[in-house]
Amino acid sequence: MAKTLITGAMIVPVDEARPAFFHGDLLVEGSFIKKISEYPEKITPEEGVRVIDGSRLILMPGLINTHGHAAMSLFRGYADDLPLQEWLEQKIWPVEERLSGDDVYWGSMLSIVEMIKGGTTTFADMYFFMDRVAEAAAECGIRAVLCRGLIGVGENSAVALAEGEQLYRDWHGRGAGRITVTLGPHAPYTCPPDFLKEVMALAQRLGATLQIHLSETAAEVEANRRQHGCSPVVLLNKLGLFEHKVTAAHCVHLDDEDIAILAQKQVRVAHNPGSNLKLGSGVAPLQKLLEAGVTVGLGTDGAASNNNLDMFEEMRLAALLAKGISGNPALLPAGKALELATAGGAGALFLEKLGRLKEGYRADIAGISRDLPHATPLHDAAAHLVYSAAAADVRLVMVDGELILEDGELLYLDEEKIKAEAARCAARLLGRTEKDS
Amino acid sequence: MAKTLITGAMIVPVDEARPAFFHGDLLVEGSFIKKISEYPEKITPEEGVRVIDGSRLILMPGLINTHGHAAMSLFRGYADDLPLQEWLEQKIWPVEERLSGDDVYWGSMLSIVEMIKGGTTTFADMYFFMDRVAEAAAECGIRAVLCRGLIGVGENSAVALAEGEQLYRDWHGRGAGRITVTLGPHAPYTCPPDFLKEVMALAQRLGATLQIHLSETAAEVEANRRQHGCSPVVLLNKLGLFEHKVTAAHCVHLDDEDIAILAQKQVRVAHNPGSNLKLGSGVAPLQKLLEAGVTVGLGTDGAASNNNLDMFEEMRLAALLAKGISGNPALLPAGKALELATAGGAGALFLEKLGRLKEGYRADIAGISRDLPHATPLHDAAAHLVYSAAAADVRLVMVDGELILEDGELLYLDEEKIKAEAARCAARLLGRTEKDS
Repeated sequence: MAKTLITGAMIVPVDEARPAFFHGDLLVEGSFIKKISEYPEKITPEEGVRVIDGSRLILMPGLINTHGHAAMSLFRGYADDLPLQEWLEQKIWPVEERLSGDDVYWGSMLSIVEMIKGGTTTFADMYFFMDRVAEAAAECGIRAVLCRGLIGVGENSAVALAEGEQLYRDWHGRGAGRITVTLGPHAPYTCPPDFLKEVMALAQRLGATLQIHLSETAAEVEANRRQHGCSPVVLLNKLGLFEHKVTAAHCVHLDDEDIAILAQKQVRVAHNPGSNLKLGSGVAPLQKLLEAGVTVGLGTDGAASNNNLDMFEEMRLAALLAKGISGNPALLPAGKALELATAGGAGALFLEKLGRLKEGYRADIAGISRDLPHATPLHDAAAHLVYSAAAADVRLVMVDGELILEDGELLYLDEEKIKAEAARCAARLLGRTEKDS
Repeated sequence: MAKTLITGAMIVPVDEARPAFFHGDLLVEGSFIKKISEYPEKITPEEGVRVIDGSRLILMPGLINTHGHAAMSLFRGYADDLPLQEWLEQKIWPVEERLSGDDVYWGSMLSIVEMIKGGTTTFADMYFFMDRVAEAAAECGIRAVLCRGLIGVGENSAVALAEGEQLYRDWHGRGAGRITVTLGPHAPYTCPPDFLKEVMALAQRLGATLQIHLSETAAEVEANRRQHGCSPVVLLNKLGLFEHKVTAAHCVHLDDEDIAILAQKQVRVAHNPGSNLKLGSGVAPLQKLLEAGVTVGLGTDGAASNNNLDMFEEMRLAALLAKGISGNPALLPAGKALELATAGGAGALFLEKLGRLKEGYRADIAGISRDLPHATPLHDAAAHLVYSAAAADVRLVMVDGELILEDGELLYLDEEKIKAEAARCAARLLGRTEKDS
């Protein structure tokens, strides 16, 4: 079993049993963290252990991106500053109709490259041609939670559901166990109750968890109230959806009853502060959700509405918004924001032994440079990660004990080829020449 | 006169007379932009012109940081997640009392290095030991607008005012004209009316502009109303302060009358969205200020409350907050956000011929890499800069026609020494060993 020892690092474990940050050594054995020491205690490397000098690194749990649409990186910058309906109907949907499986593959590869280079070790994804996303994730060595997005209206709904089931059968547990497949009913407003019942029956049969968009905009909540006489959360609860394991993305427009239901039913929430602001959807009641005991992770959403996949930004934004909107600078302190982006994300995606640097946990690790002006002085490594660090500071990434980024360079992927192929796909889809793009 | 030609770049000129972005060449002669061409038109280099290949760069006006306290980088991460009064009284003020001129010099050098590497070519600063800040700015080749922070109560107020005047006499127009000195009454709540009158008399005598903190927190506005029966803006207007050229930082808590006064008196505003959120101060009414015709620039504030000096973050935050808080994703589109961070900043600091890539304007330029996953595809270079780019993407920086950063490396500064000296100062001030910091 491969063993790697990272020595002399500043460790930010996101583990209440430890200090918020400390100098130490970290030993990885196979896919797991075997041992962590706090200086002056050191770990002596046995023979055959690969030793990495961590003295210029801050080690943290790999970031967990709990909501997104990776292939939408092809539409980055294509349609900004537009009202939501115009954005969807006139810009996004028409080009999505022209997408091929290859487009989805290269768009996903591009996003995965960006995510790994920015310290993300797990990502959730809801889209189509999902077998190609699974293929990309498996090739890249990243952890992924994937679902075929299901629209429950129109002639394609049965086909989509069958594809969702096939994806589960083909890919669940594959990629050396790093790929989880879930079912992905898109949203209450695109999936009528009868369709949701079919999805639930399938989830039951497969033992699959669910991902869904929920209460993202005021308009959709209002429409749901008009049509069903209740909020989307109440509707889904009545239908029994929350008897399943559900990751609900966005949850911006919630009332107290909604929050109580999400807490009671242990629905997990993927909070996407950047996308919610950029599309004008608003600011989710994060503090209320946390106070009610809801498990919350953070997500970037797709690059068409963000426009990058930088989880440091989302972490910072979550913390700053909580303070700025409430007027209380003590809300969502750095340690808590860090937890949302790591262990909270693992919880939000129902992944176990993940999201902390802790003995027995999976060795999904990001190493961040401390040799930077904005990391000087380094009084508080946890505060640094949340309030000052950037995706570009990531030097080392390990997933399941395997090093996939070192000295800021991808070890196994051809970044130049991936960028070129993605640019080619985007240019074809969006009608620009490669020279322009 | 030195001439530099940057060829084949993607140019984002922030100039209404041009497209938002285009391929072109840019010729610098001495301190100024001599000519910009849009392809297929090219500029033929004369003999003796230095030619730089810009084909992998996006050129934009250098970012203008309109409010900060550079030396507070020494306190980065020292006191986060605290209520404002506790932060100031128990953490910041006690360590500020121990600051030496050398501390301020190295803290400022550290901040200037971070700013240059992040594409900032002009910064405003209010602090003390300002001759040392001026020295640092002059050495670094950055443009700076500096003032001695003036507290108008206590025995030190006359000394501070004398130092403010001395700074003006010693440094205004120095550093090859890149240093502007202004007067810096700290805030209405620290400068009683009689003191402000002294400051105004001095400003009149020197012909100096002013920087002041204004209506940053709800509490200070409330206290002003109790003490003076009006808002701080109304008070300053009554005192005649706005007959001078004033840059007012923050302006978070304004009513409609305040906004009308700021517009009518042509007070310039430095908007600091990150700091305002982090300290729980709130969100400034940016859109209302812009609709009223107020000139607004962006600022980072000091690193003790931000915690970095990344103007890309502030630009993105300004745009996202405008959309998310209003519910209108079309508000503050990318081009407008870019203008706030560049030409708006020049206006906010009363600097002329600055903040646009335009013939006859000062050659303060940032070149941003386009060879990055999050810059792929590059459909809209302006949207890229606002919604996806990061400080770490900056490869080239020119101030007043002089190249000071190339291929991401500082040409004239010893970054390692500056980081080490700043860490040493911080460790001494904050009681940590250098090993920890």
